[in-house]
Amino acid sequence: MADGLTLECVRESLIRQEDTIVFSLIERSNYPMNSPVYVEGFADIPGFTGSLVEYVVRKTQAVHSTVGRYESQEEHPFFPDNLLPSLLPSYNHPKVLHPAGDAININTTIWDMYFNQLLPLFATEGDDSNYAQTAACDLECLQALSRRIHYGKYVAEVKFKDSPDDYGTLIRAQDRDALMKLLTCEAIEEMVKRRVEKKAMAFGQEVTLNGTDKEVKYKVDPFVVSRLYEEWVMPLTKLVEVEYLLRRLD
Amino acid sequence: MADGLTLECVRESLIRQEDTIVFSLIERSNYPMNSPVYVEGFADIPGFTGSLVEYVVRKTQAVHSTVGRYESQEEHPFFPDNLLPSLLPSYNHPKVLHPAGDAININTTIWDMYFNQLLPLFATEGDDSNYAQTAACDLECLQALSRRIHYGKYVAEVKFKDSPDDYGTLIRAQDRDALMKLLTCEAIEEMVKRRVEKKAMAFGQEVTLNGTDKEVKYKVDPFVVSRLYEEWVMPLTKLVEVEYLLRRLD
Repeated sequence: MADGLTLECVRESLIRQEDTIVFSLIERSNYPMNSPVYVEGFADIPGFTGSLVEYVVRKTQAVHSTVGRYESQEEHPFFPDNLLPSLLPSYNHPKVLHPAGDAININTTIWDMYFNQLLPLFATEGDDSNYAQTAACDLECLQALSRRIHYGKYVAEVKFKDSPDDYGTLIRAQDRDALMKLLTCEAIEEMVKRRVEKKAMAFGQEVTLNGTDKEVKYKVDPFVVSRLYEEWVMPLTKLVEVEYLLRRLD
Repeated sequence: MADGLTLECVRESLIRQEDTIVFSLIERSNYPMNSPVYVEGFADIPGFTGSLVEYVVRKTQAVHSTVGRYESQEEHPFFPDNLLPSLLPSYNHPKVLHPAGDAININTTIWDMYFNQLLPLFATEGDDSNYAQTAACDLECLQALSRRIHYGKYVAEVKFKDSPDDYGTLIRAQDRDALMKLLTCEAIEEMVKRRVEKKAMAFGQEVTLNGTDKEVKYKVDPFVVSRLYEEWVMPLTKLVEVEYLLRRLD
């Protein structure tokens, strides 16, 4: 990335992050719902009353913060109150975004969407008591979605740099609706939806040596992945883009 | 799994774990080598002199142990001295293996193989300072490899149950070489090698909407994945199988 932020490298990263999201959903689908993971107070953890998944996310992100994960503008913690200072020497992440964008973190919305809307669409019923592994898979999904959605900051920065006059006028007017309209391209959104559906097929297929399987069963329904992008990933990314642009001239 | 341990379900799990291994290698390949992750004492962590990756693995596995990850016979920690007791109520994992097998843990060998042999084969040179993310990806690779290789215990249990007389004779004689010969099937090994190579192609391809790309470039060289299985995964799995069988009548 460095200072050479281009539309080309932003697009490449977005496309690559689609793979990560599909992989993480497929990995989560190895376990059934395992609902005790989401029940507050299920485990008898001293001084903690939340769910197992909240515990695993908080503790893991605290570990990652000590080794500098959140020094990167691409990373957003789910529990920012819970982080520890980085112990790494001279972290040198490129800061290519406007600093006013750092305050934008919609992980509360992403958390809610993932557990209440998305997960029930693809997790099968059941309980195999692999709770730690399940929570770790949830964390991977959450991080992949969060990274992709907050990448809207980079998308917005590139779009702004490409048309500073068009965006500048709307930013000065703080015209949220017009900004949303200007940055929306329905043809591209349609293409992305079709591509992630195709990825869910390619990565979620049962690969066998003897040709193609007649009865193809995918590990995660490709339509769910397409819907995830249509209903949540792309709208939330655009929300981040608008929020970023509104602050871009601060 | 439960008490109904069958060759069919062991095979299914092994095949499914191939996907996890390929996904984890592809995800690690998103980052360059990032060698500071592997330098002892790089970070100024009070009371800790190891590498960043050792720190992340130790800390993350300690979190997972408090939520019961290592209560499962399928899971093996890399730093068993570092675990905390599970805080979960009534963990009910099926114990289908002979308890004498619990002591078998070859993660030191897997750690060494991953960092000294495998990683240099597929990580590109460079440093993008995403050290926490890199260490987290390494942990995913290590866990996936460890789980697959120690699954040899289940493979051995099934094989033993299928031919208790043949194996019993060799176990009583503690004949390591003959056991290795009896459980080896070269035709199946060849098939597995070809299948994981095909998976590396399917999962590591650049999925695009406009047909097939003429110049296919895979995210991780399929030959490296095939070699990983031939040189390390399958031999180490068989080592676990033999160690398990040698203790099977204890």
